[in-house]
Amino acid sequence: MSLRVYYEDTDAAGIVYYANYLKFAERGRTEMLRTLGFSHTGARAETGLVFAVRRCAVEYHTPARLDDLLTVETRLVRIAGATLALRQCVCRGDELLAALDVLVACVSPEGRPRRVPASLRDALINPSGSGSIKPAPAPLPPEYPPSGHSIVQKTP
Amino acid sequence: MSLRVYYEDTDAAGIVYYANYLKFAERGRTEMLRTLGFSHTGARAETGLVFAVRRCAVEYHTPARLDDLLTVETRLVRIAGATLALRQCVCRGDELLAALDVLVACVSPEGRPRRVPASLRDALINPSGSGSIKPAPAPLPPEYPPSGHSIVQKTP
Amino acid sequence: MSLRVYYEDTDAAGIVYYANYLKFAERGRTEMLRTLGFSHTGARAETGLVFAVRRCAVEYHTPARLDDLLTVETRLVRIAGATLALRQCVCRGDELLAALDVLVACVSPEGRPRRVPASLRDALINPSGSGSIKPAPAPLPPEYPPSGHSIVQKTP
Amino acid sequence: MSLRVYYEDTDAAGIVYYANYLKFAERGRTEMLRTLGFSHTGARAETGLVFAVRRCAVEYHTPARLDDLLTVETRLVRIAGATLALRQCVCRGDELLAALDVLVACVSPEGRPRRVPASLRDALINPSGSGSIKPAPAPLPPEYPPSGHSIVQKTP
Repeated sequence: MSLRVYYEDTDAAGIVYYANYLKFAERGRTEMLRTLGFSHTGARAETGLVFAVRRCAVEYHTPARLDDLLTVETRLVRIAGATLALRQCVCRGDELLAALDVLVACVSPEGRPRRVPASLRDALINPSGSGSIKPAPAPLPPEYPPSGHSIVQKTP
Repeated sequence: MSLRVYYEDTDAAGIVYYANYLKFAERGRTEMLRTLGFSHTGARAETGLVFAVRRCAVEYHTPARLDDLLTVETRLVRIAGATLALRQCVCRGDELLAALDVLVACVSPEGRPRRVPASLRDALINPSGSGSIKPAPAPLPPEYPPSGHSIVQKTP
Repeated sequence: MSLRVYYEDTDAAGIVYYANYLKFAERGRTEMLRTLGFSHTGARAETGLVFAVRRCAVEYHTPARLDDLLTVETRLVRIAGATLALRQCVCRGDELLAALDVLVACVSPEGRPRRVPASLRDALINPSGSGSIKPAPAPLPPEYPPSGHSIVQKTP
Repeated sequence: MSLRVYYEDTDAAGIVYYANYLKFAERGRTEMLRTLGFSHTGARAETGLVFAVRRCAVEYHTPARLDDLLTVETRLVRIAGATLALRQCVCRGDELLAALDVLVACVSPEGRPRRVPASLRDALINPSGSGSIKPAPAPLPPEYPPSGHSIVQKTP
């Protein structure tokens, strides 16, 4: 997905405020889900499911500025029972501005862990559309690596 | 109430972003309510009541900048059956930076108009504490001016 | 222009936070300028010009919610020497959610009033493109109504 | 430092939006600097110095909610030539809600690395006041651990 940098995104240092890359990443995840046929309101209405970020690590390489046109790429790194590990990149053209490793958990509205729905798991592992999700080169088996392993695994 | 301007509040023009004065004003209204013994979560739990802004008019006089210490003053202008008209000023010392006229409605969680609770009405008209609400010089009768009149009435 | 409502835009009442309509409106103004060939960074670099909001009045009709697809329409109401009066509507389909009257001033980076550049004035009055700006039915003469008149004039 | 959760901080899931913990942390860092006698505008005016976040890793434990009163604790983990590694905790009473490891770099306004000013280094290592910065139990030597080592070192 692509997005424009508006005044609302910038700060007095003349660059995009550091917390706002997390907003951009969340837009990217939402659009990734939409590409796969899922929406937040739909998921909540049908399955009582909410997505909660458990961890987020950001590396800031180069600042984005007012009027920049950015793209957000979202790659699936790993699916465990109740979590998705994603690698997200915020770019300006070919230039990487920020990289995020995000661990998202499926939870009930009260915050209890819930299994990733099978339909979402299938859609993530075998995305058939031309959406913005870019899976790792080979499809990941749904339970590999086993859940005792390091959760965030970088794509090569 | 007073607040500090942080990077999050500013934009690439080096000043506080224009929408953020509405955040400051909402903080001021929340603290005004707390001074009177009301909180958003309390009001919702006890009375099922939510406050919704129906209109908001802002005049921007002088921009606030990073590290400024600001104050938000909130004055009651008028109470009607289901609405409160408030005048709010964002100041830096004696200097008026922005003035807001805000019409707040009491609504049910589904958005239907609800009467301002009598306890809040009483507290607003006769604030006994030393809180940040500054009523108009003479206490306002609860139904005056009658509801057909212009809703937002400037304080002199 | 159109935009999606993401979690970042909503609040604990389950609706779009009231200040965020000003962000949406600013995105609309920025895209309107871009449609006419102007960008914030370009204007600042070439003419030293910055746009500052002097007044903003919002009427909130119906709340926007998570996942909504919204449109922002921007209409020119009047050009005076140093200011533009705009009428902006945030809609969901045919439904008007919020209407904003915004007075924007051209200023130097230090905040002093500057005349609206002739090129922008011309582009606003005679937009030839298929952009999102919707001028009032008949082109406005550049100095009409004279500057002593009421500044914000509603489109019929 | 302490802060109240307002509607602006929450989202439609009824909790504080995940990016906003980075705002809270930045408020905490700013107040830590102020406690030590430094402000962003002062540092920029006197030394041409700006602080830029290079990395930020957040663990979200329990969500904060509307009306919560939170505290932000900031601990110095390590000073290298041009960077500060900080550990920040957002708490509600004794409960840890989110923990952040933040690597902040001193840069010129153009983004080039600059040494941490000696005065700030001294103030960070030997804070004499009763401010909110909580140094590691024993004062850290200014260049230890050497810069080849892992930059973010958890406090015990």
